[in-house]
Amino acid sequence: RIMRPDDANVAGNVHGGTILKMIEEAGAIISTRHCNSQAGEPCVAALARVERTDFMSPVCIGEVANVSAEITYTSRHSVEVQVNVMSENILTGAKKVTNKATLWYVPLSLKNVNKVLEVPPIQYVRKEQEDEGRKRYEEQKLDRLETKQRNGDVIFPIINPEPHTVGYSQSSLIHLVGPSDCTLLGFVHGGVTMKLMDEVAGIVAARHCKTNIVTASVDAINFHEKIKKGSVITISGRMTFTSNKSMEIEVFVDADPFVDESRGRYRAVSAFFTYVSLSKEGKPLPVPQLLTETEEEKRRFEEGKGRYLQTKAKRQAQLQQAAQQ
Amino acid sequence: RIMRPDDANVAGNVHGGTILKMIEEAGAIISTRHCNSQAGEPCVAALARVERTDFMSPVCIGEVANVSAEITYTSRHSVEVQVNVMSENILTGAKKVTNKATLWYVPLSLKNVNKVLEVPPIQYVRKEQEDEGRKRYEEQKLDRLETKQRNGDVIFPIINPEPHTVGYSQSSLIHLVGPSDCTLLGFVHGGVTMKLMDEVAGIVAARHCKTNIVTASVDAINFHEKIKKGSVITISGRMTFTSNKSMEIEVFVDADPFVDESRGRYRAVSAFFTYVSLSKEGKPLPVPQLLTETEEEKRRFEEGKGRYLQTKAKRQAQLQQAAQQ
Amino acid sequence: RIMRPDDANVAGNVHGGTILKMIEEAGAIISTRHCNSQAGEPCVAALARVERTDFMSPVCIGEVANVSAEITYTSRHSVEVQVNVMSENILTGAKKVTNKATLWYVPLSLKNVNKVLEVPPIQYVRKEQEDEGRKRYEEQKLDRLETKQRNGDVIFPIINPEPHTVGYSQSSLIHLVGPSDCTLLGFVHGGVTMKLMDEVAGIVAARHCKTNIVTASVDAINFHEKIKKGSVITISGRMTFTSNKSMEIEVFVDADPFVDESRGRYRAVSAFFTYVSLSKEGKPLPVPQLLTETEEEKRRFEEGKGRYLQTKAKRQAQLQQAAQQ
Repeated sequence: RIMRPDDANVAGNVHGGTILKMIEEAGAIISTRHCNSQAGEPCVAALARVERTDFMSPVCIGEVANVSAEITYTSRHSVEVQVNVMSENILTGAKKVTNKATLWYVPLSLKNVNKVLEVPPIQYVRKEQEDEGRKRYEEQKLDRLETKQRNGDVIFPIINPEPHTVGYSQSSLIHLVGPSDCTLLGFVHGGVTMKLMDEVAGIVAARHCKTNIVTASVDAINFHEKIKKGSVITISGRMTFTSNKSMEIEVFVDADPFVDESRGRYRAVSAFFTYVSLSKEGKPLPVPQLLTETEEEKRRFEEGKGRYLQTKAKRQAQLQQAAQQ
Repeated sequence: RIMRPDDANVAGNVHGGTILKMIEEAGAIISTRHCNSQAGEPCVAALARVERTDFMSPVCIGEVANVSAEITYTSRHSVEVQVNVMSENILTGAKKVTNKATLWYVPLSLKNVNKVLEVPPIQYVRKEQEDEGRKRYEEQKLDRLETKQRNGDVIFPIINPEPHTVGYSQSSLIHLVGPSDCTLLGFVHGGVTMKLMDEVAGIVAARHCKTNIVTASVDAINFHEKIKKGSVITISGRMTFTSNKSMEIEVFVDADPFVDESRGRYRAVSAFFTYVSLSKEGKPLPVPQLLTETEEEKRRFEEGKGRYLQTKAKRQAQLQQAAQQ
Repeated sequence: RIMRPDDANVAGNVHGGTILKMIEEAGAIISTRHCNSQAGEPCVAALARVERTDFMSPVCIGEVANVSAEITYTSRHSVEVQVNVMSENILTGAKKVTNKATLWYVPLSLKNVNKVLEVPPIQYVRKEQEDEGRKRYEEQKLDRLETKQRNGDVIFPIINPEPHTVGYSQSSLIHLVGPSDCTLLGFVHGGVTMKLMDEVAGIVAARHCKTNIVTASVDAINFHEKIKKGSVITISGRMTFTSNKSMEIEVFVDADPFVDESRGRYRAVSAFFTYVSLSKEGKPLPVPQLLTETEEEKRRFEEGKGRYLQTKAKRQAQLQQAAQQ
């Protein structure tokens, strides 16, 4: 679809969150269709996880985003979907790859939302595809267990923070979950949540560096818990790490289903977003270093540095591999 | 209401689809109100058909669109509504007629959506009005049968197409039907569908001519089949004909109600949109000729030429008639 | 959240209606949460009244609006919420107070929408806070009775009106109430109604003075009657008074629940909006005087003048009080 002014920031770059929302919609459609392709109980595919996603080039207002999705692996109860986004300037005809994302969905019964149904198996062209898919499936399963332990954290407001400290840029946003945010099952679309997360992360990044910023990547996101219609969600973000030209922001989503459940507020999602700052010519600008004050903040900074170096090493390995082929 | 940046393209011209959506909303309101004006089963009026609509002058961001609707004929089970749109520049006070559209609605029971209710008859000021209305009613009924036969076509993607061929500009878009797209009955508003159709047709036109384009007219649209909440709709468009300064694009809407019905994918709507390309001063620009390759494409081009010449002849006849009066 | 192009007029100033909608959402969240904080029947807080609200400084596209809400008083069946809005330019870090609003909510049972539940009492830090709250509660109760009497008025269109007369700028807008406009109870959010009212008032103001206008204040608004999903609402506005640099516009909201009730059209809300016209540098411009023609119009002009002088006197008294402290 054509990118509109509301999809973009004041510099005309489309928000990463808008792209993530489109990706998730495409993934939900293809996996719901697949899971309903055999006779049986009707179901809706719910987003369980998004793998790390890199934004390779910014999309601008007036460009057309082409989204294509393909099912690449099925386990007994989950579907892996690969979604590619290409941006196309329809006036010049120029096309660029914007994103490649991998998403995991599970089919939930339309009649009983707590029942996970079985996924019809797909046919693989080559036997290795199935093996590689199984490997990815096992890896993400492990990773999902790990992130569950980060769930306790809460962000408190800080009075009169110094510039470039964590407290200076941290931000939060509340949103009342309405009908247009939800699937047929009455739960928030994963894409809606990711769009709000990107909005908060973008505010944190802009507050820190005071220049035009764009989403560079999103770390794997696990959707631990569903969020019901009528809930209030609080999305909070804080900066955890800065390199010379990038900022890492941790975002939490807390849901409060106060109207219709005895259940209290709970952590529904958390993720790391990486932003870069761009000059008017689209070149990355240096960003001010994050000032860490507490022991906690220093620890998180070091962890962020670890993730940053790991990603950098992985990318270099890929480049070398590509050069050798 | 005031036209917003999101209603318009990058050149500031409001999308024809936004206007069509407003027209349909006005028509749905007046006909639903009329059909509920007598005691009896409550109902919602559903769009059955839109007659050919010309866009007489483009509307810009910041202008106010004034929509007025009037019931002009009632048959036993359908209502004809005439909707006029005027754009007003509230700063200069200048007003222009933008559209005159004729829509047909049928009242569906709120309790049983498959039951078409009876329409309370309206009073005509002059007897001729009733006769002319009946004539229009019979004509559209005939036309509706004809278009049903065009329903089988499907659009396949083409690899590496040449510029200005049909395959080069053809486009499609998928959309998951959410609650805000639907009426009280849980079916997609006709206006929502038309807005998406215009979006796809606009992308096809821009890909073909690479310049700023606006909707010039829409041929009669028949809404053969309702589309249910939760369905996925695929909207596909391909160019069928070009004159020196206009492009005709055929648009199909296919619905896939995969979640809640045993029923497969079906063709819900199809229509022809005509676009022109405008210079910065608002003058029509020449458009590149469409290159037809297959026999099918050549046949469709000739059919499009037929529609183009017929419309041109009709318009000249009207101008002569107006000059003689 | 970040202000987007669609939230603003062509000059980049965010619509007062967008701010009012955010204020109401924050108020609805905090009061619904409070009313559900004790075990008992689940409920949704519905907006009953908004006190007079001044827009202290315009907000621009790209700025972040920070909304904070606090419960300041509870009666047996109602909650008073104080909402503050600050706009923040995230690039410069500059912050400005935009709004301070006071809203009243009543908790309606989720099971039976006509049942008003009891509100859990809040704890006051100082005894005077409770007494002052009770005084505000009694005052607004009185005022609500008064405005009920203004309910009969209807606005008729006028053919060929003279510039600067009441008929020249009067405007109306219809809107079909969809699912995304409604709360869990299926009634329109007060914030949605206020946004539409501001849209109509803004059109009236722009038609009158033909320059860039912004909302300066909104008089107390009473929500007499709920509006159900599927209703059609007609929002009408007419100018009642002009001072040298401000315009007062009266706005009515009439609801027509034609589909599902035997009940006819009724007046749901009415309010006075005050607009000023701004130059490109943000300075208030003189506005053309309103030409009153009928006795009714002259009477309304004098009443408007009364409200204007009263507000002016109150503001001067506050300034003097502040100067003395």
